[in-house]
Amino acid sequence: MKRYDSVFHLPTKVIMGDNCIFEHRSLLKELGDKALIVTGKRSAKANGSYRDLVKALEANGQAYCLYDQVMSNPTVDCVFEAAALARQERCDWVIAIGGGSPMDAAKAAAALAVQPVPQASLFSSVFSQALPIVAVPTTAGTGAEVTPNAVLTNDAAQTKTSVAAPVLVPRLAFLDARYMQGLPQSITINTAIDALSHGIEGLLSVRASPWSDVLAKASIGAIADCFPALEGAAAEWNQSQVRQKLLWAATLGGMVIAHTGTIAVHAMGYMLTYFKDIDHGRANGLLLGRYLQLVQAKERAEDPPRIPELLLAMHIPNVETFTGILDRLLGKRERCNATELAYYADRAITAKNSANGLIPVTREELLEVFSTSLG
Amino acid sequence: MKRYDSVFHLPTKVIMGDNCIFEHRSLLKELGDKALIVTGKRSAKANGSYRDLVKALEANGQAYCLYDQVMSNPTVDCVFEAAALARQERCDWVIAIGGGSPMDAAKAAAALAVQPVPQASLFSSVFSQALPIVAVPTTAGTGAEVTPNAVLTNDAAQTKTSVAAPVLVPRLAFLDARYMQGLPQSITINTAIDALSHGIEGLLSVRASPWSDVLAKASIGAIADCFPALEGAAAEWNQSQVRQKLLWAATLGGMVIAHTGTIAVHAMGYMLTYFKDIDHGRANGLLLGRYLQLVQAKERAEDPPRIPELLLAMHIPNVETFTGILDRLLGKRERCNATELAYYADRAITAKNSANGLIPVTREELLEVFSTSLG
Repeated sequence: MKRYDSVFHLPTKVIMGDNCIFEHRSLLKELGDKALIVTGKRSAKANGSYRDLVKALEANGQAYCLYDQVMSNPTVDCVFEAAALARQERCDWVIAIGGGSPMDAAKAAAALAVQPVPQASLFSSVFSQALPIVAVPTTAGTGAEVTPNAVLTNDAAQTKTSVAAPVLVPRLAFLDARYMQGLPQSITINTAIDALSHGIEGLLSVRASPWSDVLAKASIGAIADCFPALEGAAAEWNQSQVRQKLLWAATLGGMVIAHTGTIAVHAMGYMLTYFKDIDHGRANGLLLGRYLQLVQAKERAEDPPRIPELLLAMHIPNVETFTGILDRLLGKRERCNATELAYYADRAITAKNSANGLIPVTREELLEVFSTSLG
Repeated sequence: MKRYDSVFHLPTKVIMGDNCIFEHRSLLKELGDKALIVTGKRSAKANGSYRDLVKALEANGQAYCLYDQVMSNPTVDCVFEAAALARQERCDWVIAIGGGSPMDAAKAAAALAVQPVPQASLFSSVFSQALPIVAVPTTAGTGAEVTPNAVLTNDAAQTKTSVAAPVLVPRLAFLDARYMQGLPQSITINTAIDALSHGIEGLLSVRASPWSDVLAKASIGAIADCFPALEGAAAEWNQSQVRQKLLWAATLGGMVIAHTGTIAVHAMGYMLTYFKDIDHGRANGLLLGRYLQLVQAKERAEDPPRIPELLLAMHIPNVETFTGILDRLLGKRERCNATELAYYADRAITAKNSANGLIPVTREELLEVFSTSLG
């Protein structure tokens, strides 16, 4: 029973609930004297998270400064700029507020602030120290609030690449679903599918363990519970119970990939994001149904029954029904030509994630998934 | 949705698998220079765990000394003796090997070694520091390898009382099911029922959260999977897959009560252990079926549906069927007279755990559970 051979570790203390930053503000006191707050340009100020955080810091008498220039799919330049500000302002801890992009940028900046490396060697560096990190997700998708990864745009390699180190796992994560109130349906769906993809890829990872399976099935099941609301009217997908459930599920999904990593779906999705600027969660969703059909066709009798477990967790009878749900959630698909898709398949098969699946896949199979999904 | 208001934190790094101590021995290096190993008199030497640990420490060049005098239901004298040895030998970390008793004793000793308090005020002390703790469970029951609790015999209060502090959560837990090979059926069953009780009491706790529910249902489900093997021949309950599954489930159960605490079942069980010397897990098991019947009778329409979720997790149709399984696993019941049971009910209703249940219970109801279980 090799599956029981595993390491399970969830160091992040996760606080969940309305107004949880202010109510649990005492936890922030021990983290440092002056915080670098890292956000995108607008949303943290619009959704109330920045205001709540500042209120908590001021009640604690803790100083802070703000870096609010993180863009979608953050660049290496951006994280070096944030790290330089942390050093210049003598910040001794970092607070990330935002979706995946500000959280990823903040995590990388927290490492670079204390362990500067040349910009060209960022992705080959091993980070053994970082400023303490607190994460406040404002979308329910990435799970970066509990993972050791910071995914950044890697122009040299023409993809998104993950900087990963145990020191990048946030000390604290505050999950307040009020910050997601009013996010548009498309972002709600795309981020939910990103989270769903984490659970599904975790189940299908060669590093899946009994621990990660428990978290993955719980996450997948909770997101599947929300499918009808996500397809419905704003009164459904924007209700607070749905927001809370999706946020909880997204953090569970982060806990999964913190243990299992992602697989070929993410490797393929990064191509669509890098070259076609398709949102990360949507990119995974466009590929997920066809990828599962491939896995189902290839599952051998001696493999653990992953597709049946996945379908059971979602209470969905078969992969085709699931693909149909994804099709409805995603709407009209982007299209790519055969040359593009062949290039993406060439690239995706060489990614580390593609070797991380329980069922081995070939370049031709990835091309088939690309073609049936986007061709 | 108040249920989402919660804090989730699992600081212990859990390593699972055959020979995991030696394979992951590098993790021990950073914990200290000289370890105090705390065990019972015999089992750690008999089941191979002590030998494996010493082999790992010697390969690392780390010094150690041994305290091997922990008895079942450890006394306050015993933990003070272990703490004195730690100070005398200048140990800077503690390794617990054993069932619940050595782990509980080791955890309390780790605190007392650096924060001495008068013996009479042990149970009223707040521990803010302790030597780093590593736990190696050799039964699959208590979950103490991941909890902040050290449960000790409290003669002044005539019960077992928990010393609890975040610093008592072990840094590392090594789960190697080989150490359980050859444990007799009675211990295997009693410890499995202890673990089961943790999951069930966690589901029924007023502090249950979506996080703890996920872990509780996984733990309960895995133990229920093992019911047929536990009732069967040694070739069934002693097979390594069953041992591994029970050990994993017991650690999940510990993760549950680390968040939810236990409820009246434990408060009542402590009476049977203190006054009748009935094994802790068995004591809980004797009470569990009738307690669930009580909860089922009292569940109100406005409460979350806990008994149905519990039965679903176990794939068991109703509480009566579950009680029948417990009856078969436990065999002939101990009996107590009415005077004894009235006294136990008087005592149990005043315990903190009894106020921790989602469904409030009265002294008369606890007496009814005692009487139908043991009268």
